[in-house]
Amino acid sequence: LNLRNSFGNLFRITTWGESHGPAMGVVIDGCPAGLELSEVDLLALLKRRAPGTSLDVSPRREPDHPQILSGLYKGRTTGAPLSILIENVDAQSNAYQSWEGKHRPGHASYTYLEKYGIYDPRGGGRASARETVCRVAAGAVANKFINENGIKIETSLIQVGLERNPNNFSSYLQTIQQKGDSVGGLVSCRVRGMPIGLGEPIYLKLEAQLASALLSIPATKGFEIGEGFASVEMKGSEHNDFLIDKGSFASNHAGGLLGGISNAETLFFRVPFKPTASIKKIQKTTTYLGEQTELPISEKGRHDPCTAVRGAVVVEAMTALVLADFLLLSRTTRL
Amino acid sequence: LNLRNSFGNLFRITTWGESHGPAMGVVIDGCPAGLELSEVDLLALLKRRAPGTSLDVSPRREPDHPQILSGLYKGRTTGAPLSILIENVDAQSNAYQSWEGKHRPGHASYTYLEKYGIYDPRGGGRASARETVCRVAAGAVANKFINENGIKIETSLIQVGLERNPNNFSSYLQTIQQKGDSVGGLVSCRVRGMPIGLGEPIYLKLEAQLASALLSIPATKGFEIGEGFASVEMKGSEHNDFLIDKGSFASNHAGGLLGGISNAETLFFRVPFKPTASIKKIQKTTTYLGEQTELPISEKGRHDPCTAVRGAVVVEAMTALVLADFLLLSRTTRL
Amino acid sequence: LNLRNSFGNLFRITTWGESHGPAMGVVIDGCPAGLELSEVDLLALLKRRAPGTSLDVSPRREPDHPQILSGLYKGRTTGAPLSILIENVDAQSNAYQSWEGKHRPGHASYTYLEKYGIYDPRGGGRASARETVCRVAAGAVANKFINENGIKIETSLIQVGLERNPNNFSSYLQTIQQKGDSVGGLVSCRVRGMPIGLGEPIYLKLEAQLASALLSIPATKGFEIGEGFASVEMKGSEHNDFLIDKGSFASNHAGGLLGGISNAETLFFRVPFKPTASIKKIQKTTTYLGEQTELPISEKGRHDPCTAVRGAVVVEAMTALVLADFLLLSRTTRL
Amino acid sequence: LNLRNSFGNLFRITTWGESHGPAMGVVIDGCPAGLELSEVDLLALLKRRAPGTSLDVSPRREPDHPQILSGLYKGRTTGAPLSILIENVDAQSNAYQSWEGKHRPGHASYTYLEKYGIYDPRGGGRASARETVCRVAAGAVANKFINENGIKIETSLIQVGLERNPNNFSSYLQTIQQKGDSVGGLVSCRVRGMPIGLGEPIYLKLEAQLASALLSIPATKGFEIGEGFASVEMKGSEHNDFLIDKGSFASNHAGGLLGGISNAETLFFRVPFKPTASIKKIQKTTTYLGEQTELPISEKGRHDPCTAVRGAVVVEAMTALVLADFLLLSRTTRL
Repeated sequence: LNLRNSFGNLFRITTWGESHGPAMGVVIDGCPAGLELSEVDLLALLKRRAPGTSLDVSPRREPDHPQILSGLYKGRTTGAPLSILIENVDAQSNAYQSWEGKHRPGHASYTYLEKYGIYDPRGGGRASARETVCRVAAGAVANKFINENGIKIETSLIQVGLERNPNNFSSYLQTIQQKGDSVGGLVSCRVRGMPIGLGEPIYLKLEAQLASALLSIPATKGFEIGEGFASVEMKGSEHNDFLIDKGSFASNHAGGLLGGISNAETLFFRVPFKPTASIKKIQKTTTYLGEQTELPISEKGRHDPCTAVRGAVVVEAMTALVLADFLLLSRTTRL
Repeated sequence: LNLRNSFGNLFRITTWGESHGPAMGVVIDGCPAGLELSEVDLLALLKRRAPGTSLDVSPRREPDHPQILSGLYKGRTTGAPLSILIENVDAQSNAYQSWEGKHRPGHASYTYLEKYGIYDPRGGGRASARETVCRVAAGAVANKFINENGIKIETSLIQVGLERNPNNFSSYLQTIQQKGDSVGGLVSCRVRGMPIGLGEPIYLKLEAQLASALLSIPATKGFEIGEGFASVEMKGSEHNDFLIDKGSFASNHAGGLLGGISNAETLFFRVPFKPTASIKKIQKTTTYLGEQTELPISEKGRHDPCTAVRGAVVVEAMTALVLADFLLLSRTTRL
Repeated sequence: LNLRNSFGNLFRITTWGESHGPAMGVVIDGCPAGLELSEVDLLALLKRRAPGTSLDVSPRREPDHPQILSGLYKGRTTGAPLSILIENVDAQSNAYQSWEGKHRPGHASYTYLEKYGIYDPRGGGRASARETVCRVAAGAVANKFINENGIKIETSLIQVGLERNPNNFSSYLQTIQQKGDSVGGLVSCRVRGMPIGLGEPIYLKLEAQLASALLSIPATKGFEIGEGFASVEMKGSEHNDFLIDKGSFASNHAGGLLGGISNAETLFFRVPFKPTASIKKIQKTTTYLGEQTELPISEKGRHDPCTAVRGAVVVEAMTALVLADFLLLSRTTRL
Repeated sequence: LNLRNSFGNLFRITTWGESHGPAMGVVIDGCPAGLELSEVDLLALLKRRAPGTSLDVSPRREPDHPQILSGLYKGRTTGAPLSILIENVDAQSNAYQSWEGKHRPGHASYTYLEKYGIYDPRGGGRASARETVCRVAAGAVANKFINENGIKIETSLIQVGLERNPNNFSSYLQTIQQKGDSVGGLVSCRVRGMPIGLGEPIYLKLEAQLASALLSIPATKGFEIGEGFASVEMKGSEHNDFLIDKGSFASNHAGGLLGGISNAETLFFRVPFKPTASIKKIQKTTTYLGEQTELPISEKGRHDPCTAVRGAVVVEAMTALVLADFLLLSRTTRL
């Protein structure tokens, strides 16, 4: 049921809002009744995603204070939909006026305009990464649910441009930013405490739904699980993994699943983010009318030198949503 | 709507059948009315997938002659569901008896058994790659529909184990097979003639649905589009692409889409297949009861040394299904 | 997820086949693993639906012997899709040639032709009530599952035309049939042993999904639950029902549910069937080209004088499918 | 895709909010891009539904001023989700405290409590008819879209309790209300300007989806289309309808459709509403703990003597949503 602005089957979210509209929001439908929940539970994850919190990331300052408008009674979920609203406080639409009528390279203006015949250019409108604040808010709820089932997700940024030493990431990114440029990044995720049995073959395999979840995040360009692309160069005798004991495998080359179903081993996968499209350098482009032109140096737009820095928490949120959904689905496969 | 054994939204398939059951089948719902179609249209793609056609692939011999049991009238689709049935002729269940009660490394017996409490071990049952014959039959129908819209998919095997020269693939795989081992492979796909506007943000982006489709194929371990994982090391000024003219971009680093929507450039992506799990070498394993044992050398099982050889056509089929679905969805986004 | 040829969410069917094609079929996806099942389990319900079994119903003789082609291992469901195929043996397409090119009153030829641009007229093609054999086969599986959960469905025909005395139904229908005419019928359904909690507000209320299920049966023209249309004339003080004890209500005017959720009382509802459209009398009509004409007296077509006679078992089958689906959904609403 | 709090397939709504929470809301996903829209377009329909506007209906006074928070740019829809929020201003939770811990007859407290293990009793929480404000807001958008396609929906209240003369409805209802009681009502709907081809057989027939839509409205207990229940007593030769000319039938007994697909004739159907459950009379009941008790006379609760009065506009809204969805689906059935 990943359809347009909804994601998930039994634990399902629907998001709405534009970067420079009055607010962003998400409706969670199917969160099990009885979960203790308040706005406070959302803050930790939202803070990790928030812009303006370090030199590495966009200086746009959003308090990102979520309001839960429905679905709670006496501090617990009731089974009714949870509506979460987050106001857009620091949208500065005029900062974007310099490129009005011009396609910004790497942005979605061209495809949106051709597809819908209309495009909200303010901050990227619906195509903006601002939408991910909704995923993170919802992911925090999903995370709480799966945590209570013993599942724990950890994400880390393992590469930024050419730099693979996390200690150097910050200074590396400052240099990139000072040059008015950006770089890509690689996010790694490990999920511990996985039960056996999550994933619904044939077309809702765990890795298939994860891939769908992660490729829906702006700027992601791939997904690999277990040995991933490296498995191409491996032999079967090398890659094949054998069960040692209940839920414990010799090598876990497969990355925590077999046949699309979790095997209780640690789930691990990686997601590459392309370099941030919004840079300050002069770039060639065309106008909406098709004339060749240049994009002037942006003075005011506020952007991350590397989207993967904040992308890691979005990966975590989407993973939580996938696992919460599969936890519920897994209750329905036996008599 | 990728739910268990169904894939797709408006152009949707549901597959059924086990490797050693009487037949495999697929129901296609939502194929537009009026398409000229007969069994002959399915043969080309099915033949490319068929086992037993060269030294490189499994010697199991299935005629794979599809019967279309519904949905046609006077050689054209009527809008009613198309039911396609393919008999299993050459299933040799006794070939598998030597490992009865033992988990074969890299196979799904353990997770299926834990999830469902029951597992059909004959040829891998539902988890067998035999299921992909249904995808290919349905993909051939989808392919015919998208071809009529000017879209053309090409897949190629670009790496087999350590070998990147296609001229050497055959001899390389023979060597691997003689050793009783297997290797992985890398499939590349290019789609030409793409219209602008395929893909439905935010959660049904073109790349997200492609990733879901391709990761649902047995043995696939990843997906990357455009520059993919390599984009991590690129700069924004290098990766950013600009529109030259309607549907024509300077570099196409993005791989044919922006913001989850096709931009009329060639769509391109890659999918890694892990080495075939079924090998002839002696391997450690455990029994269904948890005792450590060895898997004896398989004498009779018939398997591919590299699943990617036949996997390429399955990639093509799944891609066709995704694009047919998006073509229909794209008719519904404007007034 | 009631979409075109699929019905249901977690327990989901997809049907295919035309009245005069080689076979009819249904794929059941989501049937829980571990259910004992064989073709024999389907026969009782199929026999009740079968044509040619009494004077009251169509003399078309179909053995309706179902083949289960997948999803079973050692006599139990495995969680894989169940594919059931039923051959069309007694289709006599030439019986229908007399009205070729003419719209038969009460039939779907006109709307199908306008919607799809193509129409298979043989026996009504996809629009034929022959399709309900698939619902009954699948409903038998659902019925077995819900029976194991203590739920028991009973349907009865309570009115045929103007006749409300079941003892007179048979002779009444013979008279109608001899006149070359047909009548409508009213089917009543009671479900005992209902658990509390089936139904998923707000848009998947138990009564809403039942209504959808039953109005999808050919020839049905309505649905009412509890007091139904009669509740219009009742007072609140009269209609309101109070809980006496756990799962026991004073009047059960509501018909077994409150707020869209079953309350453990007997579920009861009624479904009216319009008179069979296929009659032998001369009728006015138009050709496919729009010219006014008459439909000659049918000599060979074989039809029921009252579709509700056989419709009752289809009502039972659809009800079983709805309840099986809700049983599975109800496992996912709490922590 | 009518799943829990979502309704519709391509034109899809998701609603949230409790009667006495801070706000109610609906997210519309799939509204075609390019539709002129502002809050003003929603007011007419919302006003017709509003409480406190006449003697016949509940004196709760809600301004029901909708805010569209997303999905618009320069006064037109962009294809992005429309989020509509309506504040709850006049919720008086203390008015309900007198029955705390007691099941109100005809209400959903018992089933919600048993299903979810938790229940928000304030004004009925999620089970309140207050939720229908969201349907009406969304229905107004759908209505605008279908109006532009020439479709026009008309609903009317044709019976209130025993009264069938609309001129007497108001005085009749005042009498009922003064007695502290309530009555049921019957809503009739006609849709003119229907195109041919709306409805997606087999399981998404026009009447099936309408039935599902209408039975999801609180207090509805049935649905009939065309001759409905009266068709039971008709003969085939009487009920059968023949095509006179393109889109024009002799009798339209079928109510505007054949085989689940609209035939361009006026669509007509009726929906019965049960008497309002909230009355002022003393009633027997049990406490949440199962003890028998009485419900004291309500002094403060504000309710309608007949829900069908305001129900008519909800019927219209749901019908608009169904037709908007089918309009989009109908674009995808041919090559």
